[in-house]
Order: sequence, then C-alpha cells, then structure tokens
Amino acid sequence: MTGPLSALIAPQSIAILGASDDPSRIGGRPLAYLKTAGFPGPIYPVNPTRETVQGLPAFASVADLPTTPEAAIIALPAARVEEAVTALAERGTRACVVFASGFAEIGEAALQDRITAIAQAGGMRVLGPNCLGLFDVASRFYGSFTTTLDRGIPSEGKLSIVSQSGAFGSHLYYLARQRGLGMRSWITTGNEADVTVAECLEHLAQDPGTKVIMAYAEGFRDGDRLVAALEEARRAEKPVIMMKVGRSAIGAEAASSHTAALAGADVVCDAVLRQYNVHRARTTEELIDIAYAASTGALPKGRRLGLVTISGGVGVLMADAASDHGLDVAPMPDAAQSALKEQLPYAGVRNPIDITAQAFNDPGLLRKNLDLVLDQGNYDAVIAFLTSIPGSAANAGPIRDALAAVRAAHPDFPLILSMLVPDEVRREYEALGYAVFEDPSAAVATVAATARLHEGFTRANPIGEASGQPLALRNGTLDEHASKQLLAAAGIPVPVERLATSPEEAVDAWKAVGRPVALKLVSPDILHKTEAGGVLLGLADAVAVTEGYTTIMQRARAFAPGAHLSGVLVTPMEAGADTGTIETILGVQRDPVFGPVVLLGLGGVLVELLGDVTFRRAPIDLAEAERMIGELRGAEIFAGIRGRPPADTDALAKAIVTLSQFAVTHADAVESIDINPFLLRPKGQGAVALDALIIRRSDG
Amino acid sequence: MTGPLSALIAPQSIAILGASDDPSRIGGRPLAYLKTAGFPGPIYPVNPTRETVQGLPAFASVADLPTTPEAAIIALPAARVEEAVTALAERGTRACVVFASGFAEIGEAALQDRITAIAQAGGMRVLGPNCLGLFDVASRFYGSFTTTLDRGIPSEGKLSIVSQSGAFGSHLYYLARQRGLGMRSWITTGNEADVTVAECLEHLAQDPGTKVIMAYAEGFRDGDRLVAALEEARRAEKPVIMMKVGRSAIGAEAASSHTAALAGADVVCDAVLRQYNVHRARTTEELIDIAYAASTGALPKGRRLGLVTISGGVGVLMADAASDHGLDVAPMPDAAQSALKEQLPYAGVRNPIDITAQAFNDPGLLRKNLDLVLDQGNYDAVIAFLTSIPGSAANAGPIRDALAAVRAAHPDFPLILSMLVPDEVRREYEALGYAVFEDPSAAVATVAATARLHEGFTRANPIGEASGQPLALRNGTLDEHASKQLLAAAGIPVPVERLATSPEEAVDAWKAVGRPVALKLVSPDILHKTEAGGVLLGLADAVAVTEGYTTIMQRARAFAPGAHLSGVLVTPMEAGADTGTIETILGVQRDPVFGPVVLLGLGGVLVELLGDVTFRRAPIDLAEAERMIGELRGAEIFAGIRGRPPADTDALAKAIVTLSQFAVTHADAVESIDINPFLLRPKGQGAVALDALIIRRSDG
Repeated sequence: MTGPLSALIAPQSIAILGASDDPSRIGGRPLAYLKTAGFPGPIYPVNPTRETVQGLPAFASVADLPTTPEAAIIALPAARVEEAVTALAERGTRACVVFASGFAEIGEAALQDRITAIAQAGGMRVLGPNCLGLFDVASRFYGSFTTTLDRGIPSEGKLSIVSQSGAFGSHLYYLARQRGLGMRSWITTGNEADVTVAECLEHLAQDPGTKVIMAYAEGFRDGDRLVAALEEARRAEKPVIMMKVGRSAIGAEAASSHTAALAGADVVCDAVLRQYNVHRARTTEELIDIAYAASTGALPKGRRLGLVTISGGVGVLMADAASDHGLDVAPMPDAAQSALKEQLPYAGVRNPIDITAQAFNDPGLLRKNLDLVLDQGNYDAVIAFLTSIPGSAANAGPIRDALAAVRAAHPDFPLILSMLVPDEVRREYEALGYAVFEDPSAAVATVAATARLHEGFTRANPIGEASGQPLALRNGTLDEHASKQLLAAAGIPVPVERLATSPEEAVDAWKAVGRPVALKLVSPDILHKTEAGGVLLGLADAVAVTEGYTTIMQRARAFAPGAHLSGVLVTPMEAGADTGTIETILGVQRDPVFGPVVLLGLGGVLVELLGDVTFRRAPIDLAEAERMIGELRGAEIFAGIRGRPPADTDALAKAIVTLSQFAVTHADAVESIDINPFLLRPKGQGAVALDALIIRRSDG
Repeated sequence: MTGPLSALIAPQSIAILGASDDPSRIGGRPLAYLKTAGFPGPIYPVNPTRETVQGLPAFASVADLPTTPEAAIIALPAARVEEAVTALAERGTRACVVFASGFAEIGEAALQDRITAIAQAGGMRVLGPNCLGLFDVASRFYGSFTTTLDRGIPSEGKLSIVSQSGAFGSHLYYLARQRGLGMRSWITTGNEADVTVAECLEHLAQDPGTKVIMAYAEGFRDGDRLVAALEEARRAEKPVIMMKVGRSAIGAEAASSHTAALAGADVVCDAVLRQYNVHRARTTEELIDIAYAASTGALPKGRRLGLVTISGGVGVLMADAASDHGLDVAPMPDAAQSALKEQLPYAGVRNPIDITAQAFNDPGLLRKNLDLVLDQGNYDAVIAFLTSIPGSAANAGPIRDALAAVRAAHPDFPLILSMLVPDEVRREYEALGYAVFEDPSAAVATVAATARLHEGFTRANPIGEASGQPLALRNGTLDEHASKQLLAAAGIPVPVERLATSPEEAVDAWKAVGRPVALKLVSPDILHKTEAGGVLLGLADAVAVTEGYTTIMQRARAFAPGAHLSGVLVTPMEAGADTGTIETILGVQRDPVFGPVVLLGLGGVLVELLGDVTFRRAPIDLAEAERMIGELRGAEIFAGIRGRPPADTDALAKAIVTLSQFAVTHADAVESIDINPFLLRPKGQGAVALDALIIRRSDG
C-alpha cells in the first residue's frame, strides 16, 4: 500500500502503548484481535509493569523497543497521550491511533493541538483522538477496541467504511457483516486532530482493493479536499454512500454539541454531495442496502426497470415505488410480450410481468420466463419478487437450480431477487451471484440509487473552470448600480440604464430609454430602497421624471438623514408576468465549508415561500446549469404552460454559469450575491437582472 | 361471534368441496390445517371418488351431508363452482369460500355475477372467487390453501389482516409471524364478488378480539361503506394501517389490469384515508413496523419524543428523522438535566440524551438514567438506542435485568428499544413488554405514525352534516353568474355585481358599484371567456363602460357566432396581491368512489404549477377546514410575511365548510365546482369568490 496513510492503515510493525494482558480491556483488545487475525509483522506491547502481555514479550517504554514500529496504538488515558506521542515522534514512528477521549470534545482543544503539533513536527500521522481506531482486513492490522470484532475477524471483501463516529462506524460494520459483506478498510476518525474523513475518502478512492465506500460524517472542515476525494472516487467509478447527519435544525444542534465539526448549511451540503455523485442516505438500512447491491452486482446502466412478480399486488407496489424513485417501468417490446404470452397464457406480460405462482409448479418455465425477460425485455435492471416460496422445502431445490441457470446465462446483469427466505437460503442465492432483498420497495429504491450512481460515473466532469482576472471591487458596500456594473462586465445581462444625479440627467436618461421608466434610489447606505419609498414605476413623461427624481431624493433624506445618496437609477420598465416573462432568483452564498455556492430559484413572493430552489458548488458548466433548471419543482413553467411562450432557459443557463465563474473568481472578496428578480423573457429574447446586490466579505 | 360475516369467519361446521387426500394440494391443505388446529366442529369432505379423505369419512355430494354445514370451502375448478354454489345455497349453507380463478379477472364477469346472484338468493355469503380464503385463529377455522401456514398454526393475538390480494396477504402474514405478532383473523377477498375489504374492515372494527387492523387494497368500490368502517374503527380506537397500491400512474394502470377494482384519483383516496385516520403505508416494512408497535405497546399520547442513545451520531440521526416526521425533540426540563448531569458528568443531557457506553459498565446506572428520563423528561414516547451491546455475552444478563426493572416501573409508557441483537435476545425483550427495532430511523418513523393514529382517536368526529335543502339547479350549463348566485345563496361570499343586458344597464350597474369595474362576458356556451376577449378590467367612467359592453358583445359574436349571450357581468375591481390579498382556489370534484371531495389550494399561475393543494371528502367541519389550511406547504403566507397583513383565514375556513356542505347537498346534481380565485382579504375583511363555475352532472 502506498500513499500518505499507508503507515496508518497497513503498517509493517506495531507498538501498543498501554497494552493489557486482559483481552477484554481497551488496551488488550487490539492485541487479541491482531493475534487472532495473524498480523504478519512484529507486535511490541509497551507496558512497564509486565514481562509479557498476552504471551508476547513486553517493553517498558518506546525507547526500549528493538526496532522502530511503523505505527503505534496509544491505549492510554488522555493525560498520558502527550508524553506517548512525543516519544513515538522522537523514535520515528510514522502513524499513531489515539483512543482516549478528553480532548477538543470536552473543551480541551489546546491539549489536542499540542499533540497534533508534536506529531506533525515528527512526521507522524494521528488518527483520533476520541476514536475507535481502525482495521484493515488485507494487511491484518487491527488497531481498534470495537467490541463488534468479538464476533470474529471480518471476511475479506471490497467494502470500506470511514466514520467520524466510532459507535456509528461499529454499527455500520455490524450491519455490513450481518448482510454478508466482505470488508476492506474500516476507519473511525473521532476528533480529527489530523486525519479527516475527507483524507480517508481520498485514500479509499485511490486504494485498488476498495470498490465500494460507505461513510458517516457529522460535519466537514475542508470542503475542497472532500470534493477532490469525491471526484477521484467518481472517476474511479466507486460508489460512495454517505450518511451526513444534522439535516434538521435540532439534528444540527445535536451534532455540533456532539463534535466540534463545522456546520455549513445542510441544504448546501446536500446539494454538493449530489453534485459530486454521493448517494446521501437517510437511514442505515438505505446505506447498507446500496452498499450491498453495489458490492454484489453490476450497477444498472440506465433507468429501465423490469418487474417480474408472482403477486400482482406486489407488482403494483413495485411500480409505485419505481415511479417515486424516477425509474422507468417501460413495457416489454411487443414481440417479447407475445412470446411470453405463449409460455404463460394467464400472465400479465406488459410490465410489471405477473408470471403467477404457476411458474413454481414448473421451475423450467420460471427459467424460460426469466430468460425471455432478460434477453428480450431491453431492461437495465430486473427485480423478481418470489415471496417465500424459494424457501419452502418442497420447491427449494428445483427453483434454485432454475435460477442458477438464469444467473449463469446472464452473469453481469443487475438481476435482483426479492424474497422472504431463511438466512441460509439467502446465502445460497448470494453465492450464485444474486442480490437478495426481503422488502420489494427497498429493492426498487436500491436499483434507483445504483442507477443514479452509474449515471454520475458516465457524465462529464461537472467541475468547470474559473475564468478571467479578479475585478477590482470597490471599497465599502456595493449599491445596486455598482453591483450591476460588475455583473454586467462579467457577462450577466442587465437593463440599459443610467445613474442620474440631477432631475435634468434623469430626464436625459428617460429620453435615451425611449419608453416608460422606473426610478430607483441608489445609495450605499440604503439597501432596502422600497422601504425608503425609493422606487417609482411607470414614469412616461419629462414632468413625471423630474418630479419623481425630486420626490425620491426628499424621501431618502427623510428616511436616512446622514446617508450618502449616489443618485437615481433610470431604468426601462419591463413587461410583467402576464406578457410571458418569468421571475427567477439567482444568487451566490459563501458556505463556510464549500466556498461559493450558486443558487437558482423561482421568484415572486408566494413562490419564494414554497422554497423551489436548488444549489451547486461553484463553478459549474452549462450541462450542470441545465440540470439545475430541470430539477426545480416548477420547471414545467419554462416550457410554456396555459398559452405562455417557452422561456429563454438558454439565457438562464448561461447566466448561472457566468455567475458561478464570477463567484469563484471573486471568492475572496464576495460574501453573497442576490439577483432578484432575474427576469426570463420568451425563448430567443434573453433575460435581464432587474435588481442585484453584491455584499462584500467583511474581511475581503 | 355475531354480525353478517360470522358464518364466514367463525363457522360451527364446514364442508370442503373438492377435498383432497393429499395435504399438499389445494383441496387438501385446508383440511390438513383444520385438523392440525383442532377445529372443534364437524368437517365434511365432499369427494365422490373416495370413501375417506385424510382419515375423515367423505361424502359424494352436498345433498348427502348428514347436517347442513354452516360454511363451505369450494376447492373446485371455475367450471364447477356454479353447480356447487347452487347445491350449497339450496342446502341452506350460510357462507362459502371460492378459491378458483377464471372469473371477472379474465373477463368472465357474467359467470361471476350468476354465482353471486344464486348465493344472494339463498342467503349465502361468498368470499372470492380468485382468493386464498381466510383463517380465524380463535375459532380455529382455516379456510385457506396459503402455503404460509405450512410453517405452523399461527399463535393467537390481536392483529387482523384483510387483503384483496391473496399473495400479498400471505406475504403480510409471513412478515407478521416473523415479527412475532399473534393473529386474530386473516381474510383475502380476491375478486370481491360479494364480500369486500370494506365490509371486512367493518367486521374487524366491531370484533372485540381485533385490536390492530392491517389492510391491503388495490381499489375500492363502495366509498361510503369504507368510510363508515374506518370511522367505526377510529371510534373503537383501533389503529388501521393500510397499503393501497396504485399511487403512481404506472402503478394504477397495473392495478386496474390486475383486478377489476374501480380506480378513483389516488390523490383523493390518499386524502380520504388520512381524513379517516388510516395510516397509509408505502412499504410492507412500514406496515409491519406500525402494526408491531401498536400490538406491543401503548400509543404515544402526543408528539414529544425523548431520544436516549449511547452513540451521539445515532442521536443526531434520530433527531433528523424526528424532525422529518413532525415529532418534537423537546429538551429535558432543566431540573431533569441537572439531575442526569450528576449521574453522568460526560453525558449530553438535553435531548438527544447521550448516556455514552459508560452506562453499560454499570447497568444500575443505565436503569437510573432511563428512570429519570421517563419520570422527569415529560415525554410522550422514548426511544433508547443501545447498539449491539445487549446481545453481547458479557453484558446481556445485567442489562436485561436493568431494563426489566425499568419496564416494570413504567409498564404502559411507549418506551422503544433500538438495538442490533439476535432474534432470541429480541424475543426476551419483547416478553418484557418492549417494542424492539433494529433500525433507529424506523423506530422514529413508527413513533410518529402511532402518535398520529392516537391524535385521530382523540379528535372530534370529522364528519360534518349536510345542511339545507337541495337547491333547484337550472337545466343546462351554469354560467359564471348563475354559478355565483347559487353559491351566494349557500353562503359563499361573491362580489356585489350585476348582470347587464344592455350598455345602459351596464352603466347603471357601474354607478351602483361606485368604483372602477371589470366587465365579464356571461354566456352558457362560452365558458372560457378570456379566450373570447370577454373580460375588460378597470373601467372607470360611463363612456368606457358603454364602449366596453359593446366591445365584449362584438367579440363574443365573432368568437362563437351561434352562442347564447346572457349579457355582461359588471363587477367591482378588487385590489391586487400587492395590497395584501391572497389568491386561493376552492373546488369540488366528484370522485367515483368517495363522492364529492373539496379541494383547497394556493392560487396564481406559477403557484398552481407547484401543486400546493389538499383534499377532503365532503362534508367537513370547521376544525377539519382549519387543518386543510394549515397543511398547505405555503400556509405561512396566511400569517403575513414580508410586511403583508395576516389573511382572513376564518373567512376561508367558513367558505370551505359551506362549500363542502353545498357539495353534499347537491351531490346528485354537481359534477364539479371551481372557484378560482377565491380572494382572501386581510384578517377581518373577509374573502370573495371572484370567479366561479359549477358543472352539472351529465346524468343529473
């Protein structure tokens, strides 16, 4: 194994500080597991009070060790960790695991920082503190005291798990084992003084032995590293299934009191995980189901799902679930339907395909039916629901033989069985290469999740490039006019408008526009101009414009006597919604974890209330912008409904990309950008930012 | 047992037509099960070719039976069922079960109808055809050939299952048995030639031995009977958990091809089930989880959920899930937090309560912690997440003893354990009275579902009463003016407006209004008046009104030369949305299953696209109307946002109730009612139906 974490995950030699002779104690468990697993390199128990520990010769101190251990397990109380880390760093040990709690999680950040600094100075990596350690099945390294290992050494496989929480990581491993999944690496990061979930993901993305990655996190510190790791996993076509808790306000509060993790907005985190092809699971069942399916079989190459059932009702149930999850329950081709109808006159042959229990009276027929669906159905995945019959004594053998033949004839096709059978029967089918689910709804949800993961593998890299040089942002607050000028220079369409600093200039500007105008107060000190009475609409002659200018200035002086008044923006009136324009909202927010994030939403007071918005980490490319537009709940509006013309979504997509690049280029200077409304005109007529405001970073 | 289905579900004597000596065949299985279960009454196998069947004396025909069997199982092919039903009806048998398929589901409706008619004429009830029959544990009647019974006779309990689909019903019974749930009645209704799911629900609602009801349906024929049965179950405080498949378009299509069930709109069915306190499950897991919790323990009396965990991460996960499901993760009272902090200095004591694995080193402490949370936490339910530790050999005994003491001290409190333990350990805890879930998310979802079911038990009967006499509806199509007059007479507020039949009348009407008016074409033949150019807005003087009248009439004649033109409606202009009014939509639709259904939605083109609507079966009372208003996604708008005044939701609720009563009163005459927009003014200023259209039933 290579890479910066190789000494931690697959060391050649190990010291155990605080090694105990009692294999049930924290200091005894890792040694017991290492012995059981047959760790091939030297193991040095360090314990000044004993000659031997669990049969191995013990050493009084790190200095006494015959050779330098590549890694060390520190099973000592918090108060003794600093001394141990110092000794190990001096000795040249390259990695250590710190189990003890009593650091940043209870406010002892200074102690934790000291330990990290000592280790870093000595070139030693630290896992923890406040963690359950790790294990790596291939290298037989067990640096953990999780009691889950009491049930036996894991079988080797291609699933790796990384978890910030030790208890949760143990829970996930227990579930994976229960499901029969073989393991590669299992890592818990605890307080993340040094090694983070993101770095572990990077390692697992590069590790050739890891094919499926499961992760648990409460928060991230380094969004860039996480994104880079996820991109690497995506390019390596490794499914990443993650639980990131703290979705709800109450959950986020509980998470932040549980660890010291940074909490960006969950809605942003959610969007970023989707953007970088992570399946974010809401339940542990979902996490395990998807890891199981990804470990067991090929991923579906598309969304066409064939449903074979011996219960019409479950066929409908699965069709409902498929519809919920965006799968296509496409009918069988006509020729295939006819052929199947010949085999089974009473069968529903469209899709769901109800072969009825009749198929079990003749397992040869079951095989013929399935072969036909697989060969001629033109599906990307097939789920066969078989109730409990394959587990009943009378039928088990012939049915298994029939399904073995089907599997052998279609070895790489995602064919999933849903059935209620005893564990030993399930394992027989798994040995044949089937994924087996008890619950048909879970089978459907899992097909959908794995199909989406596969889609992510095949699409072009969604990370765009920042372009252009950072513009010189003016000092102080940016008013509407200044904001629009900057955005216009970047390529966002804004109205042809002028800043007037006298009634005469306002009239000149109105003449230049050549149609009714709106007047809008411009002041860096008055950002909510409507509240100040600073907006007048539909002025159509010189008198109205002159009076309007004066009125706005008077109101502004009354509203905020000391404010600097830059003037009045004279801007053409735009046609309203009844002429086929659509209000959208574009925005940029700086997320503390992921940096600049672009937002797209439908606009209007009521619509904003319904929260039809979507996010992406900036920058994005045109394809990703189009996906954003398409995933709005009200996206249908853009196509033109009730006689309205289709909207210029090309202009919208272009503006999103431009804004995302602007956000990245100016990431150090910009806190947020709000373009509301960004008005879409009918197709071919473009779009325009009617109002815009850039807020600079206070430290920018 | 009494009631119209007693002879079917708990007969005193049985004949089996087509009885087989082979206990694995369809005609042999029921007899084998009856013998194993020890059915106490006489069993008469009818088989003309044998002397005995499975050791019992056989009879050549129904006529040869020594006494009249109360019920009969007809295990004969479809072609012989009519003869059998005739013989049984003549003999005076009161109920029969027909297994055979080959009736309405393959187009043989006439044969099915004949059989039903013969049975009804003879006073005999029919279950099926095309069904898997039924069983009733208490009476030891097994009239089914489901292979699920091969695994043993069910243990007696309080869960009853009714399912339209035999295979699905078997699947549910298998899951219930696997989960350790005792059974009362299990009934599959198949083609429902006579006995329906709704009638079975009625029976189970009345059956004292049934405490929890699980149902599966693909469609309903008699909405009134279903609603009455559900109301009866609700009043008896019996949770009803139902799967009604066909939610999606593709699913509904599959369901209608699978049975001959009527398909009303699923969104209506969904609303009605919620209205009558059914938990509609989407997955079989959800169905079983809720039935399990309802069978095992008391239902939560409110939504305050305490979360106890030994993994901080799972605490956050559960808090997220609770938030998703509308539960209140309220903090512990301060005094309780202080007391717990004394017991566990490192514990998170707010909620989620993270007692850490420390509690397992001292099970006495675990008990003290839980007692404290239960006694002082002021929760309606508590979930304790214990990982896999209660199943580990070292800790199992002391932990179980501690939890036994906790349970004994709080016998009726909904205290749920989430843990990963072997089945035998789970059963120990269930014997103590705990509900045990593997998945913590499922535990939270189940608490939410059972709390909602309990809320339904305690609320006032949501069925209102129709009031008033049916109005005489005009013949032919109803135009806007006529529709509004009818609605106004019923109590729906409409504008003070007049129908003008000449320019002069229009001017008079404008004068009577006293402010700018809109003119709207009224014609029974032109329902889309905007398309005809039949609407003019904001007319403020006599000339404009006069010209407006003429313009509209000219346009109408050009648009539809032969149309009858009733005149022009002169109606006051209403203030727009920027003055604090809110557009809503009220409507009535006639559902083929449930009759008149009222609809409430937020209005406006874009908002309508987002589909923020809710439905109820009419009539409803004020409390239910308020619940409708509250469950709109954008309900926040009514409270007044961004400086807007709160809206007159009292007027809205009153209008919904009035409309629902109108819909019931005129159920025979009205196909649909559309009031769009129904404009809400600020609180205290009422609301008004700006436009309305009543469509009469074509057969009305």
